[in-house]
Amino acid sequence: MTRTVYVNGDYLPEDQAKVSIFDRGFLMADGVYEVTSVLGGKLVDFDGHAVRLERSLSELDMAAPVTKAELLEIHRELVRLNGIDEGMIYLQITRGAPADRDFAFPDPAEVPSTIVLFTQNKPGLADSPAARTGIKVISIEDIRWGRRDIKTVQLLYPSMGKMMAKKAGVDDAWLVEDGFVTEGTSNNAYIVKGNKIITRALSTDILHGITRAAVLRFAREAQMEVEERNFTIEEAKEADEAFITSASTFVMPVVEIDGAQLGDGTPGRVAPRLREIYLEESRKAAV
Amino acid sequence: MTRTVYVNGDYLPEDQAKVSIFDRGFLMADGVYEVTSVLGGKLVDFDGHAVRLERSLSELDMAAPVTKAELLEIHRELVRLNGIDEGMIYLQITRGAPADRDFAFPDPAEVPSTIVLFTQNKPGLADSPAARTGIKVISIEDIRWGRRDIKTVQLLYPSMGKMMAKKAGVDDAWLVEDGFVTEGTSNNAYIVKGNKIITRALSTDILHGITRAAVLRFAREAQMEVEERNFTIEEAKEADEAFITSASTFVMPVVEIDGAQLGDGTPGRVAPRLREIYLEESRKAAV
Repeated sequence: MTRTVYVNGDYLPEDQAKVSIFDRGFLMADGVYEVTSVLGGKLVDFDGHAVRLERSLSELDMAAPVTKAELLEIHRELVRLNGIDEGMIYLQITRGAPADRDFAFPDPAEVPSTIVLFTQNKPGLADSPAARTGIKVISIEDIRWGRRDIKTVQLLYPSMGKMMAKKAGVDDAWLVEDGFVTEGTSNNAYIVKGNKIITRALSTDILHGITRAAVLRFAREAQMEVEERNFTIEEAKEADEAFITSASTFVMPVVEIDGAQLGDGTPGRVAPRLREIYLEESRKAAV
Repeated sequence: MTRTVYVNGDYLPEDQAKVSIFDRGFLMADGVYEVTSVLGGKLVDFDGHAVRLERSLSELDMAAPVTKAELLEIHRELVRLNGIDEGMIYLQITRGAPADRDFAFPDPAEVPSTIVLFTQNKPGLADSPAARTGIKVISIEDIRWGRRDIKTVQLLYPSMGKMMAKKAGVDDAWLVEDGFVTEGTSNNAYIVKGNKIITRALSTDILHGITRAAVLRFAREAQMEVEERNFTIEEAKEADEAFITSASTFVMPVVEIDGAQLGDGTPGRVAPRLREIYLEESRKAAV
């Protein structure tokens, strides 16, 4: 089935969805994005994503081409047009396509931002088999730029990291900087020791995960202890449990790090419980 | 006049030159580029750019969609079609447009690379007024990713750097990491002390400039002393001269760094002489 996607005001068949070669997203990675998941045909934490999008745009002095209400309407229309029950909606905004390539930003009054959205249909996203077995990760050096709190499309290194993981026969990679884990290639990283959930504090070093914020809130509400601090990959390998969070994987247990099995090599107690709470609460609050 | 550009085998009017929204260049900055200058209708150091392009592609496990001979032919055809006497040719290759967004690289047998080229007509490029007065720079922190030797399209921070320079009322920015200058936003950086030209040695920290290699060769042939080592921004501010090199600025004197005037605030002896030699030799060797 041909997807219907959204490009600058038009709903188009995916094979007709194009941008100019002069788009600064294509030439200079001058763009930001969001991925919102869909459960039961409804948007999970749309508000959180919209607020983070605004922040990314503002940090880069980029104009928002649509209002938050219009953005919600486009998301809903794409869900409807493509009949999505479970899946994701990808959104990207770039600084548009000036008449020629130039490092200097174009005048936003003359060059409108580019906005693109498309759906990814993923039946069974919530009931993922991987969540029952857990995933394996390797650690790799974190050599990304210094503003990972801005959700830019500079995803080449995360993409290379996924390929390193694939080559190593595992599912994903955790990034390590100065000995400490920053996050996963496209997710936040956590370890569990006893009843304590440990994850790196927010800073420019990591993405301010929307799922992270929700999961930590649910954890605290469920009387679990949360400690936001740096942890080393060695500490992670000796943890009782580990997991990642992201909009598309929700809460996903990690059962092996750099070949070291965590606990008995199965998902443990905390991560599956958090996944359950997260999915339940997200379904309830979805719009 | 409408430019004729090249996209995946076709010569097209620039307003029809488009790529899929699923192109990994647009979604993930998964692409590399080169800029070759044109003098007298001929290509400057085409071979150097072609060799570096091959290296960038190889470092990223990306396939070359055309041979070097084909690439030369496309460059020449664009120069001819657009009547370029002085200017640049921009070339970009990305990992193509798979059916959907995914961090994992697509199979190159199924997804061909995207290749785009366009000209930038710049009459008077060689006889630049800026070269006679010199340019002013500020220093900013270098927060780019760790593989600056690969010429990727992850140019958001260099672009932000140009805007910081603009806001500060100057022409460009030099990037500083751990106290040492790495390079300019889109050029290599040099200082001159006495008869000695000092520039950072090649590593993954900086771009391996094609113009840099040529200029250092010409400098040595002219019996100038070249020292490839790190230098601080403080040392730069006290240098006799400074300059930058790139394919589009050739050799460009720098007369002010962070508000500190170098020498008498005019271009000095070494940089203008190197520019002269570089332009003369480049014209001779252009193809």
